[in-house]
Amino acid sequence: MNAYYSQDAHGPFRLIDIGRLELAEGGVLENCPLAVATHGQLNAARDNAILVTTWYSGTSKIMEQVFIGPGRALDPTRYFIVVVNQIGSGLSVSPHNAPGALAGPNFPKVRIGDDVRAQHRLLTEHFGIQRLALVTGGSMGAQQTYEWAVRYPEMVARAAPIAGTACNTEHDFLFTELLMEAITTDPGFRDGHYASSEGVAAGLKRHAKLWTLMGWSTEFFRCGRHHALGFDSMQAFVDGFMTGYFAPMDPNNLLCMAWKWQRGDVSLHAGHDKAAALGRIRAKTYVMPITTDMFFPPSDCQAEQQLIPNSELRPISSLDGHLTLFGTDANAITQIDACLNELLATSA
Amino acid sequence: MNAYYSQDAHGPFRLIDIGRLELAEGGVLENCPLAVATHGQLNAARDNAILVTTWYSGTSKIMEQVFIGPGRALDPTRYFIVVVNQIGSGLSVSPHNAPGALAGPNFPKVRIGDDVRAQHRLLTEHFGIQRLALVTGGSMGAQQTYEWAVRYPEMVARAAPIAGTACNTEHDFLFTELLMEAITTDPGFRDGHYASSEGVAAGLKRHAKLWTLMGWSTEFFRCGRHHALGFDSMQAFVDGFMTGYFAPMDPNNLLCMAWKWQRGDVSLHAGHDKAAALGRIRAKTYVMPITTDMFFPPSDCQAEQQLIPNSELRPISSLDGHLTLFGTDANAITQIDACLNELLATSA
Repeated sequence: MNAYYSQDAHGPFRLIDIGRLELAEGGVLENCPLAVATHGQLNAARDNAILVTTWYSGTSKIMEQVFIGPGRALDPTRYFIVVVNQIGSGLSVSPHNAPGALAGPNFPKVRIGDDVRAQHRLLTEHFGIQRLALVTGGSMGAQQTYEWAVRYPEMVARAAPIAGTACNTEHDFLFTELLMEAITTDPGFRDGHYASSEGVAAGLKRHAKLWTLMGWSTEFFRCGRHHALGFDSMQAFVDGFMTGYFAPMDPNNLLCMAWKWQRGDVSLHAGHDKAAALGRIRAKTYVMPITTDMFFPPSDCQAEQQLIPNSELRPISSLDGHLTLFGTDANAITQIDACLNELLATSA
Repeated sequence: MNAYYSQDAHGPFRLIDIGRLELAEGGVLENCPLAVATHGQLNAARDNAILVTTWYSGTSKIMEQVFIGPGRALDPTRYFIVVVNQIGSGLSVSPHNAPGALAGPNFPKVRIGDDVRAQHRLLTEHFGIQRLALVTGGSMGAQQTYEWAVRYPEMVARAAPIAGTACNTEHDFLFTELLMEAITTDPGFRDGHYASSEGVAAGLKRHAKLWTLMGWSTEFFRCGRHHALGFDSMQAFVDGFMTGYFAPMDPNNLLCMAWKWQRGDVSLHAGHDKAAALGRIRAKTYVMPITTDMFFPPSDCQAEQQLIPNSELRPISSLDGHLTLFGTDANAITQIDACLNELLATSA
């Protein structure tokens, strides 16, 4: 097993098996253990629950570290905050920890909708929650947030998709394809039958370089933000920060998430009619792109926001591009907190 | 030999050998044939010469097709326009056509400054030109334009670097590194000892995908500009347009140019002092970034423009990103023409 995905590194989380999950693409997970981290208490009215979803390569740990805490918008003294690690994340059921016939490259294809159906069962059946005060998440977490708001409109009072889209773009699909190819073209990948992540180190490094290219912004590097983070050159930043971050992860896990990411698309609920699908949303929605995001740019997010009935565009200003989500820009995190606070204060 | 680099495909051009060229990195080209296309006539005062430089993968042909013509800013009825294909372009001396010991992967490392020194010798010794009314070029052509203006300040009356920088950024260096790795990680590349470009087709296709990711813009695809160009999907655009464009090119030629591109940096003329180097420029300079350029963004270009004494920032507005240079957006080409006309009308 891969020690990266341990309680020591990413806990505390609980594994809650929501049972048999039939997948949109035809596969079946006979058991579907979800790694769940909770903060705070569900109140008697059961109306203070917040669902937090996770992004590509992210886990409940970074959500806890960057976004959750007393005095924050996601305040465990006020809300019951449920962070659900996505399928393929390495904490919930994933290629690297799946049993027998489903292990590694044989893991079935999973869609954003499968995650959201699994989370729905978890919240309703395990926690007895019928309405969510808020669903929020960044990047692939935003994809899940949109999927929630369209699939279960009566259950979502408020939605805050951050740095992500409801219907993935062709441009973003291509970026993800390049991420996947960086891994799969490494001879050490061996069609997913590698012995360990170290065997795919070269592919994971190219994958990390692609993230460096697109994940931050040109302004980030021009202004020396990587220096401010403690690296004296691009090379040191790629090696020490970005490659260091991705190197221990399981390649098949990353590919499972990337395939899912490419196909995030709520328009599937309305025969590919994006306007009809987004028109179903009943949640008060703050669409929160990051100003310098190179692959979920504000213009793409705004085009979707204009199709959501009770929504506002709330751009988060930062030089740190998409990976502002990592919490590297304290001012941007303050802006996100302020938006979420304002959203949570609206009646719904 | 590779038929792509023929007179049929890219002519007419003349090969003019400027003789022995010692290179900044220590190599030597005993002969340095430059592929030169000229338009119009040098006048008696020898003061109507314009130098046009070429970009990565581009040749004199696209400059002729997109930027030069009667009634255009680059008007052969008024100016003597000299288009010099860069070293490594495949038309001038390049890995794929170099003799014997310098062929293919053994071709020496070439710098932007080497090109500019070679062009200087061509213009002064072959054409008897002592002063240029204008130097202009896009992308790597902009790098050469800046190098000219800093290296030979008294010789350049006007300069118009389009969609490029004087000192390459760390972010852009990384993009180019990924372009190079897309080629070199193809097992068919064989350290440069491939039999033909077809043997490196997979690497050239990934290289084309990276260009698709960064070369246009997210807005380009959101607005369906690829559809307007005749392709009904991203896949068709990648296969039919982008891969079709790069597939016949010689991988070692592309790597020669990419290595040079990464290291374009006029600050080397002033001990890495960018302000001092750009402060030497005497040309009236229009810095012309493209608004949606993802790797030579306006902000990077503006930061340099502010260091150039007699300069103006003239952004070209287009959705087509860096590859606006291909001439896909007629309105943008009209803007470029207008800027160049205005610049040429200034006294110098």
